[in-house]
Amino acid sequence: MILKGSILLFPCPISEGKTESLSIEAIQLLHKTTTFVVERAKTARHFIKSIQHPTPIAQLQILEISDNKKELEDFLQVIHHGTNIGVISEAGCPGVADPGAEVVAWAHKAGIRVIPFVGPSSILLALMASGLNGQNFAFNGYLSNKKPELINHLKALEVKVQKSGQTQIFMETPYRNGFIIETCLQTLNDQTRLSIACDINTPMEDIRQMRIVEWKKVKMGEYHKRPCIYLIG
Amino acid sequence: MILKGSILLFPCPISEGKTESLSIEAIQLLHKTTTFVVERAKTARHFIKSIQHPTPIAQLQILEISDNKKELEDFLQVIHHGTNIGVISEAGCPGVADPGAEVVAWAHKAGIRVIPFVGPSSILLALMASGLNGQNFAFNGYLSNKKPELINHLKALEVKVQKSGQTQIFMETPYRNGFIIETCLQTLNDQTRLSIACDINTPMEDIRQMRIVEWKKVKMGEYHKRPCIYLIG
Repeated sequence: MILKGSILLFPCPISEGKTESLSIEAIQLLHKTTTFVVERAKTARHFIKSIQHPTPIAQLQILEISDNKKELEDFLQVIHHGTNIGVISEAGCPGVADPGAEVVAWAHKAGIRVIPFVGPSSILLALMASGLNGQNFAFNGYLSNKKPELINHLKALEVKVQKSGQTQIFMETPYRNGFIIETCLQTLNDQTRLSIACDINTPMEDIRQMRIVEWKKVKMGEYHKRPCIYLIG
Repeated sequence: MILKGSILLFPCPISEGKTESLSIEAIQLLHKTTTFVVERAKTARHFIKSIQHPTPIAQLQILEISDNKKELEDFLQVIHHGTNIGVISEAGCPGVADPGAEVVAWAHKAGIRVIPFVGPSSILLALMASGLNGQNFAFNGYLSNKKPELINHLKALEVKVQKSGQTQIFMETPYRNGFIIETCLQTLNDQTRLSIACDINTPMEDIRQMRIVEWKKVKMGEYHKRPCIYLIG
Protein backbone atom coordinates (compact mmCIF):
# COMPACT_ATOMS: atom_id res chain seq x y z
CA MET A 1 0.00 0.00 0.00
CA ILE A 2 1.45 3.37 -1.00
CA LEU A 3 0.14 6.18 1.15
CA LYS A 4 0.86 9.88 0.95
CA GLY A 5 -0.29 12.65 3.23
CA SER A 6 -2.56 10.51 5.39
CA ILE A 7 -3.33 10.19 9.09
CA LEU A 8 -2.41 6.64 10.19
CA LEU A 9 -3.99 5.40 13.42
CA PHE A 10 -1.55 2.98 15.06
CA PRO A 11 -2.72 0.95 18.07
CA CYS A 12 -0.14 0.02 20.69
CA PRO A 13 -0.19 -2.86 23.20
CA ILE A 14 -2.53 -2.70 26.20
CA SER A 15 -0.15 -5.05 28.00
CA GLU A 16 3.27 -3.34 28.17
CA GLY A 17 5.81 -4.54 25.64
CA LYS A 18 3.46 -7.14 24.12
CA THR A 19 4.27 -6.35 20.49
CA GLU A 20 2.85 -9.72 19.38
CA SER A 21 -0.62 -8.31 20.08
CA LEU A 22 -0.18 -5.89 17.16
CA SER A 23 -1.18 -6.54 13.57
CA ILE A 24 1.53 -7.30 11.02
CA GLU A 25 0.32 -4.53 8.73
CA ALA A 26 0.43 -1.90 11.49
CA ILE A 27 4.06 -2.78 12.28
CA GLN A 28 5.00 -2.68 8.57
CA LEU A 29 3.49 0.80 8.18
CA LEU A 30 4.91 2.02 11.50
CA HIS A 31 8.39 1.19 10.19
CA LYS A 32 7.76 3.53 7.24
CA THR A 33 6.40 6.40 9.34
CA THR A 34 8.71 9.01 10.89
CA THR A 35 6.28 11.77 11.98
CA PHE A 36 3.96 11.18 14.90
CA VAL A 37 1.35 12.91 17.04
CA VAL A 38 1.11 11.06 20.34
CA GLU A 39 -0.78 11.09 23.63
CA ARG A 40 2.44 10.83 25.68
CA ALA A 41 5.90 11.23 24.12
CA LYS A 42 7.80 9.09 26.61
CA THR A 43 5.65 5.97 26.22
CA ALA A 44 5.35 6.49 22.46
CA ARG A 45 9.15 6.54 22.06
CA HIS A 46 9.41 3.44 24.21
CA PHE A 47 6.79 1.72 22.06
CA ILE A 48 8.36 2.76 18.72
CA LYS A 49 11.70 1.42 19.96
CA SER A 50 10.09 -1.88 21.02
CA ILE A 51 8.92 -2.61 17.47
CA GLN A 52 12.48 -2.11 16.14
CA HIS A 53 11.79 1.02 14.11
CA PRO A 54 14.61 1.34 11.52
CA THR A 55 15.05 5.11 12.10
CA PRO A 56 16.94 6.27 15.22
CA ILE A 57 14.36 7.58 17.71
CA ALA A 58 16.12 10.97 17.95
CA GLN A 59 15.53 11.52 14.21
CA LEU A 60 11.76 11.01 14.41
CA GLN A 61 9.38 13.98 14.57
CA ILE A 62 7.17 13.48 17.62
CA LEU A 63 4.61 15.94 18.98
CA GLU A 64 2.77 15.30 22.23
CA ILE A 65 -0.86 16.45 22.06
CA SER A 66 -1.45 19.36 24.44
CA ASP A 67 -3.99 22.15 24.82
CA ASN A 68 -1.95 24.22 22.34
CA LYS A 69 -4.13 23.82 19.22
CA LYS A 70 -2.00 26.22 17.18
CA GLU A 71 1.13 24.10 17.79
CA LEU A 72 -0.75 20.94 16.74
CA GLU A 73 -2.12 22.46 13.56
CA ASP A 74 1.29 23.88 12.61
CA PHE A 75 2.87 20.46 13.15
CA LEU A 76 0.23 18.77 11.00
CA GLN A 77 0.92 21.03 7.99
CA VAL A 78 3.59 18.70 6.54
CA ILE A 79 0.76 16.35 5.63
CA HIS A 80 -0.14 18.73 2.79
CA HIS A 81 3.33 18.06 1.33
CA GLY A 82 2.75 14.30 1.28
CA THR A 83 4.13 13.27 4.68
CA ASN A 84 2.14 10.61 6.55
CA ILE A 85 1.46 11.29 10.21
CA GLY A 86 1.02 8.45 12.68
CA VAL A 87 -1.18 8.83 15.75
CA ILE A 88 -0.27 6.79 18.84
CA SER A 89 -2.29 6.57 22.00
CA GLU A 90 -1.05 5.85 25.55
CA ALA A 91 -2.44 2.31 25.23
CA GLY A 92 -4.72 0.53 22.76
CA CYS A 93 -6.47 2.11 19.79
CA PRO A 94 -6.12 5.85 19.10
CA GLY A 95 -9.42 7.68 18.64
CA VAL A 96 -11.28 5.52 21.17
CA ALA A 97 -11.39 7.29 24.52
CA ASP A 98 -8.22 9.39 23.95
CA PRO A 99 -7.12 12.75 22.49
CA GLY A 100 -6.34 11.18 19.08
CA ALA A 101 -9.96 11.85 18.11
CA GLU A 102 -9.09 15.55 17.90
CA VAL A 103 -6.46 14.90 15.20
CA VAL A 104 -8.92 12.72 13.29
CA ALA A 105 -11.63 15.39 13.46
CA TRP A 106 -9.10 17.94 12.12
CA ALA A 107 -8.21 15.59 9.24
CA HIS A 108 -11.83 15.13 8.19
CA LYS A 109 -12.34 18.90 8.15
CA ALA A 110 -9.21 19.34 6.03
CA GLY A 111 -10.19 16.53 3.63
CA ILE A 112 -7.20 14.40 4.68
CA ARG A 113 -7.46 10.61 4.42
CA VAL A 114 -7.65 8.77 7.77
CA ILE A 115 -6.54 5.10 7.92
CA PRO A 116 -7.15 2.98 11.04
CA PHE A 117 -5.00 -0.10 11.70
CA VAL A 118 -5.98 -3.24 13.58
CA GLY A 119 -4.79 -3.56 17.17
CA PRO A 120 -5.73 -4.28 20.76
CA SER A 121 -8.84 -2.79 22.37
CA SER A 122 -9.71 -3.94 25.88
CA ILE A 123 -13.37 -3.02 25.27
CA LEU A 124 -13.64 -5.21 22.17
CA LEU A 125 -11.68 -8.13 23.70
CA ALA A 126 -13.90 -8.00 26.80
CA LEU A 127 -17.03 -8.00 24.64
CA MET A 128 -15.83 -10.96 22.51
CA ALA A 129 -15.07 -13.03 25.61
CA SER A 130 -18.22 -12.12 27.54
CA GLY A 131 -20.69 -14.34 25.69
CA LEU A 132 -23.14 -11.42 25.98
CA ASN A 133 -25.03 -9.77 23.11
CA GLY A 134 -22.54 -8.47 20.53
CA GLN A 135 -25.24 -7.39 18.04
CA ASN A 136 -26.25 -4.49 20.27
CA PHE A 137 -23.91 -2.98 22.86
CA ALA A 138 -22.93 0.34 24.43
CA PHE A 139 -19.72 1.54 26.01
CA ASN A 140 -20.40 4.01 28.82
CA GLY A 141 -16.87 4.95 29.93
CA TYR A 142 -16.53 5.50 33.67
CA LEU A 143 -19.61 5.62 35.91
CA SER A 144 -19.92 7.85 38.99
CA ASN A 145 -17.66 7.26 41.99
CA LYS A 146 -20.43 8.47 44.35
CA LYS A 147 -22.61 5.66 45.61
CA PRO A 148 -26.12 7.18 45.12
CA GLU A 149 -25.33 8.27 41.51
CA LEU A 150 -23.65 4.93 40.79
CA ILE A 151 -26.71 3.02 42.01
CA ASN A 152 -28.98 5.12 39.79
CA HIS A 153 -26.71 4.68 36.79
CA LEU A 154 -26.45 0.90 37.26
CA LYS A 155 -30.25 0.66 37.55
CA ALA A 156 -30.67 2.71 34.37
CA LEU A 157 -28.19 0.47 32.53
CA GLU A 158 -30.04 -2.65 33.75
CA VAL A 159 -33.33 -1.23 32.42
CA LYS A 160 -31.66 -0.78 29.01
CA VAL A 161 -30.50 -4.42 29.09
CA GLN A 162 -34.02 -5.60 29.98
CA LYS A 163 -35.77 -3.42 27.39
CA SER A 164 -33.52 -3.82 24.37
CA GLY A 165 -31.01 -6.58 25.19
CA GLN A 166 -28.23 -4.00 24.73
CA THR A 167 -25.04 -5.14 26.52
CA GLN A 168 -23.76 -2.33 28.77
CA ILE A 169 -19.99 -1.94 29.10
CA PHE A 170 -18.19 0.30 31.60
CA MET A 171 -14.84 0.77 33.35
CA GLU A 172 -13.55 1.66 36.77
CA THR A 173 -10.13 2.67 38.11
CA PRO A 174 -8.51 -0.51 39.53
CA TYR A 175 -8.41 0.62 43.17
CA ARG A 176 -12.20 1.07 43.14
CA ASN A 177 -13.04 -2.45 41.84
CA GLY A 178 -14.23 -3.55 45.27
CA PHE A 179 -16.58 -0.57 45.52
CA ILE A 180 -18.13 -1.07 42.07
CA ILE A 181 -18.50 -4.86 42.34
CA GLU A 182 -20.10 -4.57 45.77
CA THR A 183 -22.52 -1.92 44.44
CA CYS A 184 -23.38 -4.14 41.42
CA LEU A 185 -24.19 -7.06 43.72
CA GLN A 186 -26.36 -4.86 45.96
CA THR A 187 -28.15 -3.07 43.10
CA LEU A 188 -28.65 -5.43 40.16
CA ASN A 189 -31.27 -8.14 39.81
CA ASP A 190 -30.12 -11.66 40.80
CA GLN A 191 -30.80 -12.90 37.26
CA THR A 192 -28.82 -10.14 35.48
CA ARG A 193 -25.59 -11.35 33.90
CA LEU A 194 -22.31 -9.64 34.83
CA SER A 195 -19.01 -10.23 33.06
CA ILE A 196 -15.72 -9.05 34.58
CA ALA A 197 -12.75 -9.04 32.21
CA CYS A 198 -9.64 -8.63 34.33
CA ASP A 199 -6.00 -8.07 33.24
CA ILE A 200 -6.97 -8.42 29.59
CA ASN A 201 -4.23 -9.56 27.19
CA THR A 202 -1.80 -10.42 30.00
CA PRO A 203 -0.74 -13.82 31.39
CA MET A 204 -3.00 -13.13 34.43
CA GLU A 205 -6.07 -12.56 32.22
CA ASP A 206 -9.26 -13.75 33.92
CA ILE A 207 -12.62 -13.30 32.20
CA ARG A 208 -15.78 -14.60 33.82
CA GLN A 209 -19.48 -14.18 33.17
CA MET A 210 -22.31 -15.32 35.39
CA ARG A 211 -25.55 -14.15 36.98
CA ILE A 212 -25.46 -11.76 39.94
CA VAL A 213 -26.76 -14.54 42.21
CA GLU A 214 -23.69 -16.63 41.30
CA TRP A 215 -21.26 -13.71 41.70
CA LYS A 216 -22.45 -13.39 45.30
CA LYS A 217 -20.61 -16.66 46.04
CA VAL A 218 -17.26 -15.47 44.61
CA LYS A 219 -14.42 -14.01 46.71
CA MET A 220 -14.03 -10.45 45.42
CA GLY A 221 -10.68 -9.68 46.98
CA GLU A 222 -8.89 -11.20 43.99
CA TYR A 223 -9.87 -8.24 41.79
CA HIS A 224 -8.11 -5.70 44.00
CA LYS A 225 -6.05 -3.16 41.99
CA ARG A 226 -6.26 -5.19 38.75
CA PRO A 227 -7.61 -3.33 35.66
CA CYS A 228 -11.11 -4.58 34.80
CA ILE A 229 -13.79 -4.02 32.20
CA TYR A 230 -17.39 -4.63 33.32
CA LEU A 231 -20.27 -5.80 31.14
CA ILE A 232 -23.89 -6.38 32.07
CA GLY A 233 -26.33 -8.23 29.85
CA MET B 1 1.89 -19.00 26.80
CA ILE B 2 0.89 -22.58 27.61
CA LEU B 3 -2.82 -23.11 27.43
CA LYS B 4 -4.83 -26.24 28.11
CA GLY B 5 -8.53 -26.82 27.73
CA SER B 6 -9.43 -23.26 26.80
CA ILE B 7 -11.71 -21.58 24.28
CA LEU B 8 -9.55 -19.42 21.98
CA LEU B 9 -11.33 -16.67 20.05
CA PHE B 10 -9.49 -16.18 16.74
CA PRO B 11 -10.43 -13.20 14.56
CA CYS B 12 -10.07 -13.59 10.79
CA PRO B 13 -9.61 -10.89 8.13
CA ILE B 14 -12.57 -8.67 7.18
CA SER B 15 -10.89 -8.14 3.81
CA GLU B 16 -10.51 -11.56 2.15
CA GLY B 17 -7.03 -13.06 2.36
CA LYS B 18 -5.56 -10.06 4.22
CA THR B 19 -3.61 -12.09 6.79
CA GLU B 20 -1.42 -9.07 7.60
CA SER B 21 -4.43 -7.56 9.40
CA LEU B 22 -4.16 -10.32 12.04
CA SER B 23 -2.14 -10.12 15.24
CA ILE B 24 1.13 -12.05 15.47
CA GLU B 25 0.02 -13.78 18.67
CA ALA B 26 -3.26 -14.98 17.14
CA ILE B 27 -1.39 -16.57 14.22
CA GLN B 28 1.13 -18.22 16.57
CA LEU B 29 -1.68 -19.76 18.65
CA LEU B 30 -3.72 -20.70 15.58
CA HIS B 31 -0.75 -22.77 14.38
CA LYS B 32 -0.90 -24.77 17.62
CA THR B 33 -4.67 -25.33 17.53
CA THR B 34 -6.19 -28.29 15.67
CA THR B 35 -9.80 -28.34 16.92
CA PHE B 36 -12.21 -25.63 15.83
CA VAL B 37 -15.82 -24.57 16.10
CA VAL B 38 -16.62 -22.27 13.19
CA GLU B 39 -19.42 -20.19 11.73
CA ARG B 40 -18.89 -21.63 8.22
CA ALA B 41 -16.60 -24.60 7.57
CA LYS B 42 -15.68 -23.71 3.98
CA THR B 43 -14.43 -20.21 4.71
CA ALA B 44 -12.75 -21.32 7.95
CA ARG B 45 -10.73 -24.00 6.09
CA HIS B 46 -9.78 -21.44 3.47
CA PHE B 47 -8.66 -19.02 6.20
CA ILE B 48 -6.69 -21.66 8.16
CA LYS B 49 -4.90 -22.62 4.94
CA SER B 50 -4.09 -18.97 4.19
CA ILE B 51 -2.14 -18.59 7.42
CA GLN B 52 0.00 -21.65 6.55
CA HIS B 53 -1.24 -23.91 9.33
CA PRO B 54 1.37 -26.67 9.82
CA THR B 55 -1.25 -29.46 10.09
CA PRO B 56 -2.89 -30.73 6.87
CA ILE B 57 -6.44 -29.29 6.75
CA ALA B 58 -7.98 -32.79 6.43
CA GLN B 59 -6.48 -33.73 9.81
CA LEU B 60 -8.07 -30.82 11.69
CA GLN B 61 -11.26 -31.29 13.70
CA ILE B 62 -13.73 -28.68 12.47
CA LEU B 63 -17.39 -28.38 13.50
CA GLU B 64 -19.71 -25.87 11.86
CA ILE B 65 -22.12 -24.30 14.38
CA SER B 66 -25.68 -25.37 13.61
CA ASP B 67 -28.99 -25.54 15.49
CA ASN B 68 -27.96 -28.97 16.80
CA LYS B 69 -26.96 -28.06 20.35
CA LYS B 70 -26.35 -31.68 21.36
CA GLU B 71 -23.79 -32.10 18.54
CA LEU B 72 -22.00 -28.90 19.61
CA GLU B 73 -21.84 -29.88 23.28
CA ASP B 74 -20.59 -33.39 22.42
CA PHE B 75 -17.87 -31.88 20.21
CA LEU B 76 -16.79 -29.48 22.96
CA GLN B 77 -16.24 -32.31 25.50
CA VAL B 78 -12.57 -32.82 24.49
CA ILE B 79 -11.86 -29.51 26.21
CA HIS B 80 -12.23 -31.32 29.55
CA HIS B 81 -9.28 -33.51 28.53
CA GLY B 82 -7.05 -30.49 27.92
CA THR B 83 -7.63 -29.82 24.22
CA ASN B 84 -7.90 -26.16 23.22
CA ILE B 85 -10.79 -25.25 20.94
CA GLY B 86 -10.52 -22.33 18.53
CA VAL B 87 -13.60 -20.35 17.51
CA ILE B 88 -13.57 -18.73 14.07
CA SER B 89 -16.21 -16.42 12.69
CA GLU B 90 -17.17 -15.83 9.03
CA ALA B 91 -15.30 -12.49 9.16
CA GLY B 92 -13.80 -10.37 11.94
CA CYS B 93 -14.00 -11.08 15.66
CA PRO B 94 -15.90 -14.10 16.96
CA GLY B 95 -18.45 -13.32 19.66
CA VAL B 96 -19.36 -9.92 18.22
CA ALA B 97 -22.51 -10.24 16.13
CA ASP B 98 -22.04 -13.95 15.30
CA PRO B 99 -22.91 -17.44 16.67
CA GLY B 100 -19.55 -17.71 18.46
CA ALA B 101 -21.17 -16.02 21.48
CA GLU B 102 -23.09 -19.26 22.10
CA VAL B 103 -19.85 -21.24 22.53
CA VAL B 104 -18.49 -18.55 24.86
CA ALA B 105 -21.67 -18.60 26.97
CA TRP B 106 -21.36 -22.41 27.21
CA ALA B 107 -17.72 -22.08 28.34
CA HIS B 108 -18.57 -19.61 31.12
CA LYS B 109 -21.29 -21.94 32.40
CA ALA B 110 -18.86 -24.87 32.38
CA GLY B 111 -16.10 -22.85 34.08
CA ILE B 112 -13.83 -23.08 31.01
CA ARG B 113 -11.29 -20.32 30.38
CA VAL B 114 -12.09 -18.03 27.41
CA ILE B 115 -9.21 -16.17 25.71
CA PRO B 116 -9.88 -13.47 23.09
CA PHE B 117 -7.18 -12.58 20.55
CA VAL B 118 -6.65 -9.24 18.84
CA GLY B 119 -7.91 -8.88 15.28
CA PRO B 120 -9.93 -6.83 12.84
CA SER B 121 -13.34 -5.40 13.75
CA SER B 122 -15.01 -3.12 11.22
CA ILE B 123 -17.02 -1.48 14.03
CA LEU B 124 -13.92 -0.55 16.03
CA LEU B 125 -11.92 0.59 12.96
CA ALA B 126 -14.85 2.77 11.86
CA LEU B 127 -15.11 4.30 15.34
CA MET B 128 -11.34 5.02 15.54
CA ALA B 129 -11.38 6.78 12.16
CA SER B 130 -14.61 8.72 12.69
CA GLY B 131 -13.24 11.44 14.99
CA LEU B 132 -16.53 11.10 16.92
CA ASN B 133 -16.89 10.46 20.66
CA GLY B 134 -15.09 7.22 21.57
CA GLN B 135 -15.68 7.61 25.33
CA ASN B 136 -19.36 6.83 24.91
CA PHE B 137 -20.73 4.89 21.95
CA ALA B 138 -23.36 2.32 21.02
CA PHE B 139 -23.53 -0.26 18.25
CA ASN B 140 -27.11 -0.80 17.09
CA GLY B 141 -26.66 -3.52 14.44
CA TYR B 142 -29.02 -3.18 11.47
CA LEU B 143 -31.85 -0.64 11.53
CA SER B 144 -35.24 -1.21 9.88
CA ASN B 145 -35.49 -1.51 6.08
CA LYS B 146 -38.97 0.06 6.15
CA LYS B 147 -38.87 3.82 5.70
CA PRO B 148 -41.28 4.96 8.49
CA GLU B 149 -39.56 2.74 11.12
CA LEU B 150 -36.12 3.78 9.87
CA ILE B 151 -37.02 7.47 10.18
CA ASN B 152 -38.25 6.94 13.75
CA HIS B 153 -35.14 4.96 14.67
CA LEU B 154 -32.77 7.56 13.18
CA LYS B 155 -34.60 10.33 15.07
CA ALA B 156 -34.34 8.35 18.32
CA LEU B 157 -30.60 7.82 17.76
CA GLU B 158 -30.12 11.52 17.06
CA VAL B 159 -31.88 12.38 20.35
CA LYS B 160 -29.43 10.09 22.16
CA VAL B 161 -26.49 11.89 20.51
CA GLN B 162 -27.91 15.27 21.52
CA LYS B 163 -28.73 14.25 25.10
CA SER B 164 -25.63 12.26 26.06
CA GLY B 165 -23.09 12.73 23.27
CA GLN B 166 -23.18 8.96 22.70
CA THR B 167 -21.93 8.10 19.19
CA GLN B 168 -24.48 5.86 17.43
CA ILE B 169 -23.12 3.15 15.11
CA PHE B 170 -25.17 1.03 12.71
CA MET B 171 -24.87 -1.07 9.55
CA GLU B 172 -26.82 -1.66 6.37
CA THR B 173 -26.61 -4.28 3.64
CA PRO B 174 -24.55 -2.77 0.79
CA TYR B 175 -27.33 -2.69 -1.83
CA ARG B 176 -29.42 -0.50 0.47
CA ASN B 177 -26.74 2.18 1.07
CA GLY B 178 -28.54 4.63 -1.19
CA PHE B 179 -31.79 4.17 0.74
CA ILE B 180 -30.23 4.66 4.16
CA ILE B 181 -28.03 7.63 3.20
CA GLU B 182 -30.97 9.37 1.52
CA THR B 183 -33.12 8.78 4.62
CA CYS B 184 -30.34 10.13 6.89
CA LEU B 185 -30.10 13.31 4.82
CA GLN B 186 -33.88 13.79 4.89
CA THR B 187 -34.28 12.98 8.60
CA LEU B 188 -31.28 14.22 10.56
CA ASN B 189 -30.53 17.77 11.64
CA ASP B 190 -28.22 19.74 9.31
CA GLN B 191 -25.68 20.13 12.14
CA THR B 192 -25.55 16.43 13.10
CA ARG B 193 -22.28 14.73 12.16
CA LEU B 194 -22.38 11.59 10.01
CA SER B 195 -19.40 9.35 9.33
CA ILE B 196 -19.48 6.74 6.57
CA ALA B 197 -16.70 4.14 6.70
CA CYS B 198 -16.71 2.32 3.38
CA ASP B 199 -14.70 -0.78 2.28
CA ILE B 200 -12.83 -0.81 5.60
CA ASN B 201 -9.39 -2.46 5.61
CA THR B 202 -9.27 -2.74 1.81
CA PRO B 203 -7.29 -0.70 -0.76
CA MET B 204 -10.59 1.08 -1.65
CA GLU B 205 -11.16 2.17 1.96
CA ASP B 206 -12.89 5.57 2.17
CA ILE B 207 -13.79 7.04 5.55
CA ARG B 208 -15.38 10.47 5.77
CA GLN B 209 -17.05 12.47 8.51
CA MET B 210 -18.92 15.73 8.11
CA ARG B 211 -22.16 17.46 9.02
CA ILE B 212 -25.41 16.48 7.28
CA VAL B 213 -25.51 19.89 5.55
CA GLU B 214 -22.11 19.07 3.96
CA TRP B 215 -23.10 15.50 3.01
CA LYS B 216 -25.97 16.99 0.98
CA LYS B 217 -23.34 18.26 -1.50
CA VAL B 218 -21.69 14.83 -2.02
CA LYS B 219 -22.53 12.46 -4.90
CA MET B 220 -23.94 9.39 -3.17
CA GLY B 221 -23.76 7.01 -6.14
CA GLU B 222 -20.17 6.11 -5.22
CA TYR B 223 -21.35 4.12 -2.19
CA HIS B 224 -23.47 1.74 -4.28
CA LYS B 225 -23.02 -1.91 -3.23
CA ARG B 226 -19.92 -1.20 -1.10
CA PRO B 227 -20.01 -2.39 2.55
CA CYS B 228 -20.36 0.57 4.90
CA ILE B 229 -20.54 1.30 8.62
CA TYR B 230 -22.49 4.41 9.65
CA LEU B 231 -21.85 6.59 12.69
CA ILE B 232 -23.74 9.62 13.89
CA GLY B 233 -22.41 12.00 16.53
